[in-house]
Amino acid sequence: MKKYTLGIDFGTLSGRILLVDVENGEEVACSIVNYKHGVMEEYLCNTNQRLPLDYALQHPQDYLDVLSIGVRKVMNEANINIDDIIGIGVDFTACTILPIDSDRNPLCFNDKFKNNPHAYVKLWKHHSAQEQATKIIKLAKKRNEKFLARYGYQISSEWLLPKILEIVEEDPEIYDNTDKFIEAGDWIVSLLVGKEVRSSCQAGYKGLWHKQDGYPDNEFFKMLHPKLDRFVNNKLSINILSIGECAGVLSEDSATLIGLKAGIPVAGAYIDAHSAVPAVGITEEGKMLMIMGTSTCHMVLSKREIFVTGISGVVEDGIIPEFYGYEAGQACVGNAFEWLVDNLVPKKYYDAAEKEGMSIYNYLNKKAALLKPGENGLLALDWLNGNRSILSNSELTGSIYGLNLLTKSEDIYRALIEATAFGTRVIIEQFESQGIKIDELYATGGISKKSPLIMQIYADVTGRTIKIGSSEQAVALGSAILGAVVATSKNGGYDSITDASLKMGNVDTVVYTPIESNRLVYNILYNEYKLLHDYLGNGENEVLLRLKSLRNKILRGE
Amino acid sequence: MKKYTLGIDFGTLSGRILLVDVENGEEVACSIVNYKHGVMEEYLCNTNQRLPLDYALQHPQDYLDVLSIGVRKVMNEANINIDDIIGIGVDFTACTILPIDSDRNPLCFNDKFKNNPHAYVKLWKHHSAQEQATKIIKLAKKRNEKFLARYGYQISSEWLLPKILEIVEEDPEIYDNTDKFIEAGDWIVSLLVGKEVRSSCQAGYKGLWHKQDGYPDNEFFKMLHPKLDRFVNNKLSINILSIGECAGVLSEDSATLIGLKAGIPVAGAYIDAHSAVPAVGITEEGKMLMIMGTSTCHMVLSKREIFVTGISGVVEDGIIPEFYGYEAGQACVGNAFEWLVDNLVPKKYYDAAEKEGMSIYNYLNKKAALLKPGENGLLALDWLNGNRSILSNSELTGSIYGLNLLTKSEDIYRALIEATAFGTRVIIEQFESQGIKIDELYATGGISKKSPLIMQIYADVTGRTIKIGSSEQAVALGSAILGAVVATSKNGGYDSITDASLKMGNVDTVVYTPIESNRLVYNILYNEYKLLHDYLGNGENEVLLRLKSLRNKILRGE
Repeated sequence: MKKYTLGIDFGTLSGRILLVDVENGEEVACSIVNYKHGVMEEYLCNTNQRLPLDYALQHPQDYLDVLSIGVRKVMNEANINIDDIIGIGVDFTACTILPIDSDRNPLCFNDKFKNNPHAYVKLWKHHSAQEQATKIIKLAKKRNEKFLARYGYQISSEWLLPKILEIVEEDPEIYDNTDKFIEAGDWIVSLLVGKEVRSSCQAGYKGLWHKQDGYPDNEFFKMLHPKLDRFVNNKLSINILSIGECAGVLSEDSATLIGLKAGIPVAGAYIDAHSAVPAVGITEEGKMLMIMGTSTCHMVLSKREIFVTGISGVVEDGIIPEFYGYEAGQACVGNAFEWLVDNLVPKKYYDAAEKEGMSIYNYLNKKAALLKPGENGLLALDWLNGNRSILSNSELTGSIYGLNLLTKSEDIYRALIEATAFGTRVIIEQFESQGIKIDELYATGGISKKSPLIMQIYADVTGRTIKIGSSEQAVALGSAILGAVVATSKNGGYDSITDASLKMGNVDTVVYTPIESNRLVYNILYNEYKLLHDYLGNGENEVLLRLKSLRNKILRGE
Repeated sequence: MKKYTLGIDFGTLSGRILLVDVENGEEVACSIVNYKHGVMEEYLCNTNQRLPLDYALQHPQDYLDVLSIGVRKVMNEANINIDDIIGIGVDFTACTILPIDSDRNPLCFNDKFKNNPHAYVKLWKHHSAQEQATKIIKLAKKRNEKFLARYGYQISSEWLLPKILEIVEEDPEIYDNTDKFIEAGDWIVSLLVGKEVRSSCQAGYKGLWHKQDGYPDNEFFKMLHPKLDRFVNNKLSINILSIGECAGVLSEDSATLIGLKAGIPVAGAYIDAHSAVPAVGITEEGKMLMIMGTSTCHMVLSKREIFVTGISGVVEDGIIPEFYGYEAGQACVGNAFEWLVDNLVPKKYYDAAEKEGMSIYNYLNKKAALLKPGENGLLALDWLNGNRSILSNSELTGSIYGLNLLTKSEDIYRALIEATAFGTRVIIEQFESQGIKIDELYATGGISKKSPLIMQIYADVTGRTIKIGSSEQAVALGSAILGAVVATSKNGGYDSITDASLKMGNVDTVVYTPIESNRLVYNILYNEYKLLHDYLGNGENEVLLRLKSLRNKILRGE
């Protein structure tokens, strides 16, 4: 009498549907549907219209295809009774937003607006609203807005309000014709249950919403732009579901669309990274989860609301109910290693790797693994894509020290790995200095599974054990866990995220434990890292910002 | 009735003989003889005896082969009358020294000592006497020795005394059996003229000798090591020729060895870099010559003796009579570019270069030339091989700032070029701040001929015009000029280096002139360079030294 839930995870390039056994979290089947339109960064789809710099748009039809194709695919593969699906959870990248009309149709589906970039989905990494973000911070600081402290006094251009202000300023017609702006995750859930719902996770981390205080005052929005008068009431929704709450049940229409039966309970949406927390079984304080891929997200639970400087956000019930959920981040992890491999690995290494029948990554890993800590004589600052936590400055850039005529590609590779680990340690120490203990680390995401070398270095640098999430699809598993929670125990699910996580969340038996002799060397190197981190990141010498601004001027021909 | 001189140039890997027309410096013929034993860095020749770290030895037979083979080759090629050779000049790398017996035979020619590394030639880049150099500086500072100021308060491990002290400490038997220690350049000239002679150039720049004060006191040597009591009198020679003085005439024996007639006047030896000064026609103040290759040597003439902090040396009559000759240096120029090409250029660039039928250097140059100053957003410190001037610290290492996910190999290449140019500007500003004006630059050496991109960047960064020496063999040409001086006008030569240089020295018609718009951007970047240069090089943050020392400890297994 097995019961199952579906975790539907919308990533940056594809969506995946994971069918999970509610009893133990076993992953029965998984289907992946790539987005036909991918990420629009240079041209608007089906046009020759060139997009401005730093744009990243998506087509909402791609999300609908994930639902209509993906769920059927996974059901076919699993070959289970359709009646045994007892719940659905959804997670999405964030802040990924779109303008919809009063029928909840995306504006870009309307022929009138289909050539208008602002009518499409703004993906989380749409970065062109930096100017707007700066304006928002300035005004908020001037008005001494209370919300600022919750976000470490920084508002990212990736978040909701900068993206909205960009539309207001650049295409007021779209703003006027929009009934609501909605997170894509909330849009999907609203579609499934046939009514508008919003999640505390998205609203809290990306929308400046607070459980007690709600959104910022209308006065603030009005001062930001006259058109934003009554923005919250008119264009958002104040009806916010706590994480784990049931959004409603699958509507007849949606059931037809995805090929399931109507009436299945659907959970409010998770942000993708946050969804991984229950998937690795974290339901208490003292543990930090690192979701390690291109970049790293750090998730921490605490019973206390503390405004940790330089931490991206703290949201009550944002990850697990009855906890304050903290999010921090590193903008540059896997992408730094990729950058090295793409740009700074010599031909002879490719030749040698081919000869040994290895990927270039494995070859580099093998070479880097032979080095002792400190042996390469290098130290790097890992800011090649800016610094998210704790400096919150996307304009910062990377640097390397200790280069000599014997420095090889693998030395730099290892230095970059170490630098990202030092960056994690800075975040841990920041949490701890403000009273939030972190005793143990958990990791999930591609890197955690693929590179024992990297994980050991992280253990050595942070001086903490690291457990690795078992699932290759931890994010989707987290959504399936929410699906089991909204199903409730009465129907074969669970009555809390904690209960569900303990049964369905999993970690590997392999645990990375710090090696004492390495830890001692890394303590020395970390002190050097921190010294340069503060020198170059905290205003003492702003050479990195000046170099960046000179570069931008020259590229713009000024 | 044309007359000719021979310039005999002993480099690191080969010797070359240049036959030059005395009237105009025209290079009639040139022969190159590679050293059969090359540089012994790992094993002593003809043995399995492993050499200690940082050794660099040579076999003096290789120098004799240059004489016996090379001169005949060049005469055959030139097809001129043997009587029209009116003078010979010799230059050599320095400090390159060897121990000889009372018959002026190298100790390593003696079967008794042929398995003893200390019996061989210590090449300039024999770097294992760092400990001894440190000891010498310490004692000299304690005794407040006057000579220290002439060398910017630094004694390089490359110089004569550290190399001697190493022998005294490690193989006293060799020290005792040595009649004299002699610069290889002086040894060659002594051999040619059949009597012992020494040059002010070698003695001044590498041997702590001063025209008025002579060598340091015997007391100093005694305190350094008891065995060094009476070191100068017993093991050196106080009979020092000024530059341009005649050492004697070709002896019968030597004439037979090399295939010329006895009686040709031979000049005292030049250091190879210094020899390039007259070859480009510099005979006055206000001009700096850069000999640009693996590393760069900077030569400046002045009527005034000033102790410029961080400058390698100042020697009266050391380059041209009646001038104080200043030498500065950058330890890392061409070797940094080579390092990049060997280690950090991706496979796809090699493939593309091959497709375009270009060398990888030309391909990188082409890509780097497309970048505007400041466009790569990068800044580097060029200390990958330590810093010679003005920080005199071989333990310093390189660093790069501004790295981002779009940084390419050519960006780093250009940043390294710019960094070496900034390093040159630091040297120029150091000279000028102490009252030695530098209005114009001259360059010679491989880079000056091969890379217009690099030379233009140097002009833009320094804000000065750069003239390029015409000769591909400027160093050998300088020696040929000395040969013409010792011939005297009576025999078809000249009576001064200035006269000879004006007729025989040459520069190209191409002159690199600063481009104003580039200069402005580089002024900004130079200020950033200087800030980091002082921060990391002047003791404010000694992270580079600590990284190096940690690395050394780990490599030694401590």
